[in-house]
Amino acid sequence: MAGAFDDAAVPRRLLRERAFNLRWAQLPVDVIPLTTADCDFPVSEVVRERLTRHIADGLLCYGSPEGLPEFRAAVARWFDQRRAVSCGPEAVFATDSAAAALSVVARASLDPGDEVLIPDPVDFLFAHTIRRAGGRPVAVPYDPATTAEEYLDGLERRRTDRTRMLWICNPHNPWGTVPPEGWLARVAGWAVERGLRIVSDEVWSDIVFPPHELTSVAALSPEIAHATATVYGFSKNFALAGLRVGCVVCTDPGWREEIVAASDARSTVAGVSVLSQVAAVAAVEAGHEWLAGFLRHLHGQRDYLLGRLAQWPGLSITAPQGTFVAFPDVTALDPDAERLCARLQDEARVALVPGSARLFGPRAAGHIRISFATSRAILSEAFDRLEPVVRKLARQDESLRHRSAAA
Amino acid sequence: MAGAFDDAAVPRRLLRERAFNLRWAQLPVDVIPLTTADCDFPVSEVVRERLTRHIADGLLCYGSPEGLPEFRAAVARWFDQRRAVSCGPEAVFATDSAAAALSVVARASLDPGDEVLIPDPVDFLFAHTIRRAGGRPVAVPYDPATTAEEYLDGLERRRTDRTRMLWICNPHNPWGTVPPEGWLARVAGWAVERGLRIVSDEVWSDIVFPPHELTSVAALSPEIAHATATVYGFSKNFALAGLRVGCVVCTDPGWREEIVAASDARSTVAGVSVLSQVAAVAAVEAGHEWLAGFLRHLHGQRDYLLGRLAQWPGLSITAPQGTFVAFPDVTALDPDAERLCARLQDEARVALVPGSARLFGPRAAGHIRISFATSRAILSEAFDRLEPVVRKLARQDESLRHRSAAA
Repeated sequence: MAGAFDDAAVPRRLLRERAFNLRWAQLPVDVIPLTTADCDFPVSEVVRERLTRHIADGLLCYGSPEGLPEFRAAVARWFDQRRAVSCGPEAVFATDSAAAALSVVARASLDPGDEVLIPDPVDFLFAHTIRRAGGRPVAVPYDPATTAEEYLDGLERRRTDRTRMLWICNPHNPWGTVPPEGWLARVAGWAVERGLRIVSDEVWSDIVFPPHELTSVAALSPEIAHATATVYGFSKNFALAGLRVGCVVCTDPGWREEIVAASDARSTVAGVSVLSQVAAVAAVEAGHEWLAGFLRHLHGQRDYLLGRLAQWPGLSITAPQGTFVAFPDVTALDPDAERLCARLQDEARVALVPGSARLFGPRAAGHIRISFATSRAILSEAFDRLEPVVRKLARQDESLRHRSAAA
Repeated sequence: MAGAFDDAAVPRRLLRERAFNLRWAQLPVDVIPLTTADCDFPVSEVVRERLTRHIADGLLCYGSPEGLPEFRAAVARWFDQRRAVSCGPEAVFATDSAAAALSVVARASLDPGDEVLIPDPVDFLFAHTIRRAGGRPVAVPYDPATTAEEYLDGLERRRTDRTRMLWICNPHNPWGTVPPEGWLARVAGWAVERGLRIVSDEVWSDIVFPPHELTSVAALSPEIAHATATVYGFSKNFALAGLRVGCVVCTDPGWREEIVAASDARSTVAGVSVLSQVAAVAAVEAGHEWLAGFLRHLHGQRDYLLGRLAQWPGLSITAPQGTFVAFPDVTALDPDAERLCARLQDEARVALVPGSARLFGPRAAGHIRISFATSRAILSEAFDRLEPVVRKLARQDESLRHRSAAA
């Protein structure tokens, strides 16, 4: 039987019809996208079976505003079993993506001008959703080497009387770091002691490579849990990005009520497709084997990618501990990552995401983000295409330096 | 072969698990809900087949922010063929329900304090979405007998220098009226001459009983079309309420851009499940036969319901020309419709929607709304249960009147 993550499992022709958001369907036909963090593999058989069975019944009536009872129960069990976060189904609020979850928590929790401490760099949705809610994101430098002391120092120096929240990306996109329990406990404890609420974006939390281990912020202590809204989704772990389903897990009933009210779900203005919820339930109830296989495949992809990147002249990278993105420093090739990505797409026919201030924050400069949630064949083909261009760039760079030294 | 709208086609046991939003799954087990406008029948075979086929491929990647190309093209063709509204696919913006479409158009089009003329009564989502966008709904009396002259007079008297929009419900919920072309042309023309933008909520537009005919507001003239955002959905016509898919059709590129920007779809915060879009495409491309059968069934249901209501003492009603709701005046039974509905649910075990100010506006008082999108068996059982209670109420009422006349 062919494996779910074999080269043949990636349906390239179908991806060109169906994979949007800077991927196959939106790029020139000969370009390989290692861009948006969405995987190239079909969903698990069990998700397909459950969806097909639900559809066969034919009833697709209105769901319930906070999520189907079976969705809320399955997610609560999943958090209990996999994250040591004990919460009842009532703590789970279904949202139409993890991005929508960030947005609704921001809208429910911020008044105009309220400040939120966020890492820099981090996924653009942090600053974006905070700004759209009227808040002000305050960037705190963070990289794989940042110790808890250094981060606490950065937080403390940026805290004002308008600071209301601390947002954590756990695991971190784009660095791929998985903050250790001690690091998280100190940072989250600092926030709670100062009366700040916490958002822990754990949309990547199922993609962690051994020996690293994820700690959910809400598992640290009951006090921290009470001050934390955890954002979770089914796009990175179970390939359901197109179904638009995620959730907020929040054990503080008062805050949760504010979040549900801000969502406008009770009026039917917002909500989550019942089929998407059925798929998410199937994934967390019966998708463990698929997820374990996906994780093994990604672990191999990560190691392969690191091996290939090691051949690039002047590049430096910290190995991702989780997520399926790598974020190398490419300033040796070109200090302008946007220009570099444009050139790589043009000459190597591989699309990558530049570490631009708009996408990740000012401290992403000089980096590129590479998604490796594809087959080994495609990743290897992409690197075969990239390497000659990268070598040419390095030679030009060297000859420029020689010339400028000679001048 | 059993028909799609036979008594046996309604899966009562499954409805008790799956039909939320004031329906089977949320009411005591012995109560029949004729409440929320969501039908009791499974979706068409063709929708099931297309969904199943799409799922078999297994790719559920990110869709595109404004809607899948095939969704936008199919809806544009549907509007062209069925509504004489000519627009290209680019005019169609997918939203995660018709309710979400109203909400995003309100947010894109209103500044705080802007006034919007809406009919009274009308579905609560009009006032609700306008208020949440910071606008002020201004209620204009409207009933099945309101002539264009009378309505124009009502509009003109309520227009101020803060009036920005006119919202039309076409067909009208809860009256079930289908405004004739001449009526619509005068009302829409009045708005356009005064520089007002129009929202035409046409979520009910496929449910119209001959000889009545729907006119789309955007089909009236190019000037009117340019000033109009049409809201459309797939819940009433194709039973897809649980899939959360609708759209805005707007031929003014500048306004449409404002609507897309307000939605936050480009950031991935908002969007529509790709499966829901696949279902909607199947429905408009190949669901005509199912829709025609549904419409014939509903026509029969309406006539049956009118016959049964004719037995109720003191009741008055205008026959619905479209929609699958009836909105009789029940003041003869009880001037307080909320009290009446509570009593009917309690004693007759049938749930109905009261004509409360919160749900429909102040002029809904003294009415109840009855959804008839169920089987003949269930509708007849519901009336068998209601009639004894109604007769008892009428007798009490009569004896009260006798007593008060005697006093």
